[in-house]
Amino acid sequence: MMNDYPSILLSDAVSSFASLPGVGKKSALRMALGMLKRSDDEVRAFTDSILRLKNETHYCRVCHTISDTELCPICASTGRDRTLVCVVENVRDVLTIENTGQYNGLYHVLGGIISPMEGVGPKDLEIDSLVSRVEQGGVAEVILALPTTMEGDTTNFYIYRRLAPSGVRVSQLARGVAVGNELEYTDEVTLGRSIINRTEYKA
Amino acid sequence: MMNDYPSILLSDAVSSFASLPGVGKKSALRMALGMLKRSDDEVRAFTDSILRLKNETHYCRVCHTISDTELCPICASTGRDRTLVCVVENVRDVLTIENTGQYNGLYHVLGGIISPMEGVGPKDLEIDSLVSRVEQGGVAEVILALPTTMEGDTTNFYIYRRLAPSGVRVSQLARGVAVGNELEYTDEVTLGRSIINRTEYKA
Repeated sequence: MMNDYPSILLSDAVSSFASLPGVGKKSALRMALGMLKRSDDEVRAFTDSILRLKNETHYCRVCHTISDTELCPICASTGRDRTLVCVVENVRDVLTIENTGQYNGLYHVLGGIISPMEGVGPKDLEIDSLVSRVEQGGVAEVILALPTTMEGDTTNFYIYRRLAPSGVRVSQLARGVAVGNELEYTDEVTLGRSIINRTEYKA
Repeated sequence: MMNDYPSILLSDAVSSFASLPGVGKKSALRMALGMLKRSDDEVRAFTDSILRLKNETHYCRVCHTISDTELCPICASTGRDRTLVCVVENVRDVLTIENTGQYNGLYHVLGGIISPMEGVGPKDLEIDSLVSRVEQGGVAEVILALPTTMEGDTTNFYIYRRLAPSGVRVSQLARGVAVGNELEYTDEVTLGRSIINRTEYKA
């Protein structure tokens, strides 16, 4: 629907917005027409922020998260526990964990997880750099915080084996019934495992 | 949530995307990180299409729809019925009506509707230009296709009175039960009016 735009430039802009994740043709049209209502300066600020994101950001040379500087603010911070390294799939996971306010260590962003189906192998990920980071010393524990999927589990196991020679402690996120969930709505695999892996009740 | 981005440039780009209609902070972050995965050329094409939309499009000098040229393709077309002018609130409505495939006349985009609550009066809209267009002759019928709201009705009435001296025929979209709707789910005002304004059954 809506193929016959009276303007090719409008059509092009709509296609651009529709290329964003989760944006359909109707929303894209609303976004494009919304741009026409903004001032020249506002539209320029909008596009500049995207170009600067693309052209001026780096990936931190230690943890590979996105950063304005060669070393990200987390790696550069003196207030974080440098003996803990939390391994995550992507930058979004760093932000998600930071938002819990429960973690004060460092990170290591893999840039993906092992997925033979999608042709992603260990060499495509920041795993070698994780191993060297641990081998350089100073890391007491590596916390695996990857998705609880088959690919996540495969990646966990691969990393675990690569790190074994170093003797570093390797942990993973606790798995079980989500806080606030009714048992009725918890999937059977999770519930079954949470019975097997039950923990002592502490009042 | 998600206030502490490791990058100010990322934070700025997320704010830009979050300024789009219907986009929350989480979707905006996904959009921004998605830009980092595109090539330089792709990102440049994305921002260029927006800048060109803003800087190079016109509003058609006759019907005021968005156009790449001074006269839009609809007004410039020789295949359209030039005696019909359909009055709509905005460019989106032109596209919506074009998509029905049921209309072959011209348009007149008001750029809004009369709304005292929002401080929009007749002078803020393309109403004078509609009146002159009709006075110049050649228009047999003006079809009012504004929203069926109080503001739409007010605008319809205002335009009707302004056009009365010209003697042009003024019509409005048929109102009634939507095609495919159960009566049970049709609102009472619409249903009540559709009884009063019932039409002859044609087999």
